[in-house]
Amino acid sequence: MSKEISVRTPSRRVLVDITDEVAREVNGDGTWMAYVPHTTAGITINEGADPAVARDILARLEELAPDDADYEHAEGNSPAHVMATLVGSSVLFAVENGRLRLGQWQAIFLCEFDGPRTRRVELTKVGG
Amino acid sequence: MSKEISVRTPSRRVLVDITDEVAREVNGDGTWMAYVPHTTAGITINEGADPAVARDILARLEELAPDDADYEHAEGNSPAHVMATLVGSSVLFAVENGRLRLGQWQAIFLCEFDGPRTRRVELTKVGG
Amino acid sequence: MSKEISVRTPSRRVLVDITDEVAREVNGDGTWMAYVPHTTAGITINEGADPAVARDILARLEELAPDDADYEHAEGNSPAHVMATLVGSSVLFAVENGRLRLGQWQAIFLCEFDGPRTRRVELTKVGG
Repeated sequence: MSKEISVRTPSRRVLVDITDEVAREVNGDGTWMAYVPHTTAGITINEGADPAVARDILARLEELAPDDADYEHAEGNSPAHVMATLVGSSVLFAVENGRLRLGQWQAIFLCEFDGPRTRRVELTKVGG
Repeated sequence: MSKEISVRTPSRRVLVDITDEVAREVNGDGTWMAYVPHTTAGITINEGADPAVARDILARLEELAPDDADYEHAEGNSPAHVMATLVGSSVLFAVENGRLRLGQWQAIFLCEFDGPRTRRVELTKVGG
Repeated sequence: MSKEISVRTPSRRVLVDITDEVAREVNGDGTWMAYVPHTTAGITINEGADPAVARDILARLEELAPDDADYEHAEGNSPAHVMATLVGSSVLFAVENGRLRLGQWQAIFLCEFDGPRTRRVELTKVGG
């Protein structure tokens, strides 16, 4: 009931469309959770058709948690932690007839806020 | 186990209290998910008693993703996509004895960020 | 399948690490939901090792929904409602072999935005 995918993020901050990787792993109809076990990354569902949308979302998050604000945490990645909480650590979605039942324009994005790194996404079936 | 409601949103941006519509559709006790299959709308749980709260939330979201910021996506609705990610595409809640078990002040709001439109909300029982 | 914990928050705004309290209550492997039935509090998963991270997240939320912005709701706690929607009212996590399966740095935080108060967190097993 639980699977894991690994995502190599290519840069410091980037939203990576992982819809196809998720679709390959899920098996069994029902409601699934995609969970990110990291604190400087998140996961969101948004438009996948025009990659500019993901870039606009990220650019805006960088305005909301700017690098040059005052932060107490000494590692320098507090903006990434803030963005992770704004975006969230999990999403839910349906699988029907073995396929993701997302909305027409929806895609699933791993949100890298402190890369490049190899990130994990846990996929778990949570409901019938 | 899965139901759908349709919501006609009356304006470009508005938080619509859909608690009653959700309550009418859910059947069977357990944990339910309300999922929005759109990328310029979201869903949140917040105070339903004073409608000014929802207006304050929306006004603040409009400050966080202003219309006049620089966006790359050419359709002009990037603020709506940003707000959708900030708010999220699904909420979870409990149904007990056939009724929503929300907190005393909680209501479920469809968040329209690029309307007016007819929006769908999928209701799925995810747990016993 | 459902448990509740009570959290006495010590100040007006604070992120309280409730990971240990949650771990004590969950029983049975699977996916669990932690749900906050309040509208001026939220819940998030983020770094628990350095308490400065939680303080940075809160400080940033206070910039995103400042006390001195214009709000319509007369109770004066609109910033708390905004923060609750930005953070969310529930998180999901896995329990395996009777223990929380969080990422290495992850902890679960009750986010108090309008305290001090006694807050409740409902823990419900949502999936096998």
